[in-house]
Amino acid sequence: MAEVKLFGFWASPVSRRVEMALKLKGVEYEYIEEDLNNKSELLLKYNPVHKKVPVLLHNGKPIAESLIIIEYIDLTWEGPSILPEDPYERAMARFWAKLLDEKCMPAMWKACWSTGEEREKNKEEAIEHLTFLESELKEKKFFGGDTIGLVDITANFIAHWFGIIAELMGVELITQDKFPNLSKWVDEYANSSFVKENLPSKDKLVAFFKARIQAPDETKYFRKV
Amino acid sequence: MAEVKLFGFWASPVSRRVEMALKLKGVEYEYIEEDLNNKSELLLKYNPVHKKVPVLLHNGKPIAESLIIIEYIDLTWEGPSILPEDPYERAMARFWAKLLDEKCMPAMWKACWSTGEEREKNKEEAIEHLTFLESELKEKKFFGGDTIGLVDITANFIAHWFGIIAELMGVELITQDKFPNLSKWVDEYANSSFVKENLPSKDKLVAFFKARIQAPDETKYFRKV
Repeated sequence: MAEVKLFGFWASPVSRRVEMALKLKGVEYEYIEEDLNNKSELLLKYNPVHKKVPVLLHNGKPIAESLIIIEYIDLTWEGPSILPEDPYERAMARFWAKLLDEKCMPAMWKACWSTGEEREKNKEEAIEHLTFLESELKEKKFFGGDTIGLVDITANFIAHWFGIIAELMGVELITQDKFPNLSKWVDEYANSSFVKENLPSKDKLVAFFKARIQAPDETKYFRKV
Repeated sequence: MAEVKLFGFWASPVSRRVEMALKLKGVEYEYIEEDLNNKSELLLKYNPVHKKVPVLLHNGKPIAESLIIIEYIDLTWEGPSILPEDPYERAMARFWAKLLDEKCMPAMWKACWSTGEEREKNKEEAIEHLTFLESELKEKKFFGGDTIGLVDITANFIAHWFGIIAELMGVELITQDKFPNLSKWVDEYANSSFVKENLPSKDKLVAFFKARIQAPDETKYFRKV
């Protein structure tokens, strides 16, 4: 059995976070693609609480929840640090990652899949959070400074997925005008060679989401990603 | 200015978590009680994103979100470790703390404040999560093993607050019969001398919640704790 296995789903931004962390550290791993409509017995065995990807298996021991997996990877393997060393900077990285995960990205996601007043409400909420991120980013190249760190990886949905879905659903949110720092970050991050190699192709994602828009009943599991 | 300040609220279990962590480490701090109906300018300045307690101020730098503050305290000050040293155990502690915070305790809380079918649904969800915690606890004295750790501190709501509110609202959930390990943990933890010294008195909490039950319109802010 390979020492490190990852149970993931190609179109899931949270699953891709873990792949990025493993690749930043140069960890060799076996990737196991899950069918989210028919989850494997192993996935259910290794993540009985949430029954979701990603799950990292290291020497037979399972870890779930992408941010927890990334912290584990950072602590376990040598290589570039994903979290800052300084305790205060570390706390701040965790703070922004948590905000992205629990508030900002859910609001962005819901803004895409809702209509009318509900969409406006979700957009407003997303703008509130994005405004804080905009000022956190300031003149930095990445949230992690000169190199990619926890907050960048956590925000990969914003850099890649969101633009695709927003275009398909007719949502305008992160404009050059209103969010110049974030717009620059999206460009810098999504076009860095490391990130480009580790994201699903735009064409494949467009096809994936188009199919889901046309068959809304089958999208439930994906809307929760 | 004191080196360490804590902005908190006496009846908030998340605020008490941070006090417990500081005391476990033997950190001296100045405590600033917030009026949640009329938050101080300093609280809003130091936690503009969430506008909530607790906020820790260390050498003038603010940190919000109780679990993030506890990790910062554990990393910054000497003394008993709050998180396990072993990377896998550390990931597991974070996993259970996250589950408690995001799923288990919100379901328990909602079960208290809802009625009829909604209450039954919330209870079912809480039972599902509690069942995982029950089997995680096994024969251990605390979630942290022989000593109090991150998961214990995170779960202080279950050990102290929940029983009080559940009695007032007529909810039965953590029984000796269904959750023998958790029931034993509640006893061990809430009666350990360290914990007892750091929890609000039962009488004061009963009075606090009774007032809120009688004046439901004013309870909104608190129901979100």
